[in-house]
Amino acid sequence: MDTEQREQSRIAVESIRRMPLYLRLLRDKFSESEFVTSVAIADALNLNAIVVKKDLAAVASAPGVPNVGFSVKTLRDDIEEFLGYNNTTDAVLVGAGNLGSALLSYGGFANCGLNIAAAFDADERLFGKVVSGKRILPVDKFENLVKRLKIRIGIITVPGAHAQNVCDLMVRAGIKAIWNFAPAHLTVPNGVALKNEDLSVSLAVLSNDLKKITEKNGDA
Amino acid sequence: MDTEQREQSRIAVESIRRMPLYLRLLRDKFSESEFVTSVAIADALNLNAIVVKKDLAAVASAPGVPNVGFSVKTLRDDIEEFLGYNNTTDAVLVGAGNLGSALLSYGGFANCGLNIAAAFDADERLFGKVVSGKRILPVDKFENLVKRLKIRIGIITVPGAHAQNVCDLMVRAGIKAIWNFAPAHLTVPNGVALKNEDLSVSLAVLSNDLKKITEKNGDA
Repeated sequence: MDTEQREQSRIAVESIRRMPLYLRLLRDKFSESEFVTSVAIADALNLNAIVVKKDLAAVASAPGVPNVGFSVKTLRDDIEEFLGYNNTTDAVLVGAGNLGSALLSYGGFANCGLNIAAAFDADERLFGKVVSGKRILPVDKFENLVKRLKIRIGIITVPGAHAQNVCDLMVRAGIKAIWNFAPAHLTVPNGVALKNEDLSVSLAVLSNDLKKITEKNGDA
Repeated sequence: MDTEQREQSRIAVESIRRMPLYLRLLRDKFSESEFVTSVAIADALNLNAIVVKKDLAAVASAPGVPNVGFSVKTLRDDIEEFLGYNNTTDAVLVGAGNLGSALLSYGGFANCGLNIAAAFDADERLFGKVVSGKRILPVDKFENLVKRLKIRIGIITVPGAHAQNVCDLMVRAGIKAIWNFAPAHLTVPNGVALKNEDLSVSLAVLSNDLKKITEKNGDA
């Protein structure tokens, strides 16, 4: 591991969360521009310019030129490199219901360097069914296949009541990063990363914002 | 608006994000207990006990009793009240593909006081199709129906390229809170809340955690 990598892994989680937003902007809105300033990016995303400047300085391979900014192409490459989008990482998914199928069909993952290599379910009526080119496999085959392919990322899209069992199965199979979409509180051992995609949490934030807006308008 | 409501809307967004986690714990792990301490909750969620104590103090209708804690039932009621789970709020959804169908079928929203009252799509092959008891309606009918029913929450599950158009349509129809699942940067006017459910952002955080773990294990 070189110093640069070590610095990158210490970047604050809030900065990491902003990187995909910068990248989308460079790919869409600024795709026709040669240069872009951190102020222009901050304006487009409603962020503080100093925050954006710091974020970009942490990943840019060349410093921004005063009054000119960054080369859009180079900055795009730098962020893609930082986010690991240039190397495809395989993941496995357990739970091929509606949400699992939605993720299997989601076009955006390929752009983020993520490939869902296999999908599993416990419901035998789904075995052999093909979703977006992926055949649904019996969950009995999970451990063996994941170990053989040395897959590190697991996605959980089963009902909440089954999520901890699936999580334990993933840990046994050597999965090191779990992306949980089930509405359940999961426990993982040290050395395994867990990211909860909890819709009730997002909804709580949105509802609170809505409450503030309606109170302000006096129509609460 | 009374003082209590005003205080609630000022609670930091990070506290709000933790409330659904506390509630899930009270409903599941502590559902059989009569009392629970903030320390026990903090332990179960791997959080700092002082943070949990402050969060609970902000929403609890009665203070915790030293060495005893909070009544599980009362605390649960208080958090449900705070999160607005006792009043059902109607929402509308645009984009009835896989992800839209997954959200229509998602059992968890009813527990959070959210009801997706209607779903729309622009694809006429989907018109009349019923997903989880909801008939898919043509998007032409959106503005009229949303205004008539005075719906305030809109969920966007269309492809990224169409998301801003749908967002503008929602704003015109009087929607005040937009929950965006499309991979697109949306612009909303002042007075409209926007929550992006951006999978590439979550993936960036998870990938970074995985990188740290594999570097630590020396198998990068």
